[in-house]
Amino acid sequence: MKVNVADGMNYAPQGKPQPVVKPGEFIFSAAALDHGHIYGMTNGLLEAGGTLKYVYDKDPAKVAKFIETYPQAKAAASLEELLEDKETHMVAAAAVTSERCALGLRAMDAGKDYFTDKAPFTTLEQLAAARQKVKETGRKYMVYYSERLHVEGAILAGYMIDQGEIGKVVQVIGFGPHRLNAPSRPKWFFEKEKYGGILCDIGSHQIEQYLHFSGEEDAKVTMSRIANYNHPDYPELDDFGDCAITGAKGSTNYFRVDWFNPDGLRAWGDGRAFILGTDGYIEIRKNINVAADTLGGNHLFLVNGKGERYVDATGVTGYPFFGQLILDCLNRTENAMTQQHAFKAAELCLQAQAQAIDITRAGR
Amino acid sequence: MKVNVADGMNYAPQGKPQPVVKPGEFIFSAAALDHGHIYGMTNGLLEAGGTLKYVYDKDPAKVAKFIETYPQAKAAASLEELLEDKETHMVAAAAVTSERCALGLRAMDAGKDYFTDKAPFTTLEQLAAARQKVKETGRKYMVYYSERLHVEGAILAGYMIDQGEIGKVVQVIGFGPHRLNAPSRPKWFFEKEKYGGILCDIGSHQIEQYLHFSGEEDAKVTMSRIANYNHPDYPELDDFGDCAITGAKGSTNYFRVDWFNPDGLRAWGDGRAFILGTDGYIEIRKNINVAADTLGGNHLFLVNGKGERYVDATGVTGYPFFGQLILDCLNRTENAMTQQHAFKAAELCLQAQAQAIDITRAGR
Repeated sequence: MKVNVADGMNYAPQGKPQPVVKPGEFIFSAAALDHGHIYGMTNGLLEAGGTLKYVYDKDPAKVAKFIETYPQAKAAASLEELLEDKETHMVAAAAVTSERCALGLRAMDAGKDYFTDKAPFTTLEQLAAARQKVKETGRKYMVYYSERLHVEGAILAGYMIDQGEIGKVVQVIGFGPHRLNAPSRPKWFFEKEKYGGILCDIGSHQIEQYLHFSGEEDAKVTMSRIANYNHPDYPELDDFGDCAITGAKGSTNYFRVDWFNPDGLRAWGDGRAFILGTDGYIEIRKNINVAADTLGGNHLFLVNGKGERYVDATGVTGYPFFGQLILDCLNRTENAMTQQHAFKAAELCLQAQAQAIDITRAGR
Repeated sequence: MKVNVADGMNYAPQGKPQPVVKPGEFIFSAAALDHGHIYGMTNGLLEAGGTLKYVYDKDPAKVAKFIETYPQAKAAASLEELLEDKETHMVAAAAVTSERCALGLRAMDAGKDYFTDKAPFTTLEQLAAARQKVKETGRKYMVYYSERLHVEGAILAGYMIDQGEIGKVVQVIGFGPHRLNAPSRPKWFFEKEKYGGILCDIGSHQIEQYLHFSGEEDAKVTMSRIANYNHPDYPELDDFGDCAITGAKGSTNYFRVDWFNPDGLRAWGDGRAFILGTDGYIEIRKNINVAADTLGGNHLFLVNGKGERYVDATGVTGYPFFGQLILDCLNRTENAMTQQHAFKAAELCLQAQAQAIDITRAGR
């Protein structure tokens, strides 16, 4: 797996091809290339056997770069051409966050499943519209929660939990520090109406991961906080956020997300997850094992009654989400992720953002 | 440093002697040996040059064991004899938590400084009485917050923060998992009225540490939760607690404490602290570096603009608190810890416990 160490916006892991379909059996097109995650999404779908057909973005430079990476992609003349293509099963997209829903509604209206970068929404109204559209059309509105779906350490942790290695999960804690690298980021990234706030944005990974590891289907935001501690030039940037959630079945979650990844770290963020069970715990060092020799991610630590165990999960699990997603689209199943789960994670991150105590800025 | 790996109740580190006074210049006596921390407290005071005189407990077996460890100690015939001793400067004590304040008030009334195991109180009324008694008598009511004061990794972290290695501290996160080892613990340990609840008890370490690392003098509990997830035989035990605090200067704190340390871990608890600053962060693995070869604690990881750095802090700092405390008592200064700080940490842990959402038990 190659990992870009500069910043998370260009995190686009490559895995071993594990095709679940033959060429041409599942066709997808890429629309809206505003966030670099579109590359990770495309890699995942291609490795799972998907066939890439069209690409469209209003910015020809973004299209050119995309085609340079994926020469098989054909530039569509317009979004309409892409959406109206009869062969395309799925539209994969990484629009500006606030525009993700509108694009998804159009894709579903055109009969396509929709696969968007996280966060999938910036408002609860968008979420309600998407829920309604799913009901109307039967199409999927799936989300690329990359910090679990595209991290082998996290996939392996899920398997270990399923196998009972740590008993019943009582708590999930997540740290999601990210390198800001502000000059490299587009303007919309610093406009709250567009990116949605830190708990909505990178917090969405954390909440999805919590629901997955705990097996919770419903939960409530118990507390959330945001701040801009040290970026006065970007007043609408939340450079810090944290959140506590309580699950309907009684498990708890806490996470912190921030834009303080130090320049001296050899990775774009020292992401961690700590999963506490009644019989043991798991720690995942997602992107780096700080100050250890190995560069690379997916360091999993399992402690239970049997002892302490370290597993380098790189290359161990692959990324089963993408193949499952393709099969879900073809067979109308929900093995990769249920629609309910994808939307619940989105709902909670919107609620966390909306009710957050703003520590450093007035008016809250 | 020798560390007992069975459980934290017997955590009594030994360090290098760093005496600040000559024999006989600072005399202390030990009263109430209910918690094993009295051994850590005694070690610390002896290594700093303190002279141990009397020991008293109503249980002769506890006294005998104490004298076996410290043959210089003389069994007092009664608590009165110990308290009335003219030579004794300080009474060190680790009573049942709910009885710590009453003993402290008596010690201060007898003209002694008081050094108690944490938590120092189980109710806000006790805290108010102690604050009043300090005012009346001018004596000290000091607290053995061992998970910072007796952990060289934590002492070193404090020094690094003071030196500006991570910029301004914006958040402190702490994990305080502990091995329960229930059969080894006295009955009072499972009675909430006596031990005070998990946030009061082992949560107090966490809050003290937060105030210290962040430099906050005042703060508010933003959210707290407790649960008994998996110990139905001990219904008054909180086997889980967590808490979020917001400091008056704007920093934040989150901590989790629990009694789920797995049997397979080679230490009594994988205690961690994560200190996030504007220019870097520090992680302390206090007691063990999981699944790594080294057995022992004080693993400090510093990441900032200069890079990633690992320091094995064992033997690096010693435990300056005890020498400073002795000199504070002799010189009536506050270099080891201010009275205000010791009481503020206690106040917050009592508030956190009192307002905690109880996730698993009825009536809240």
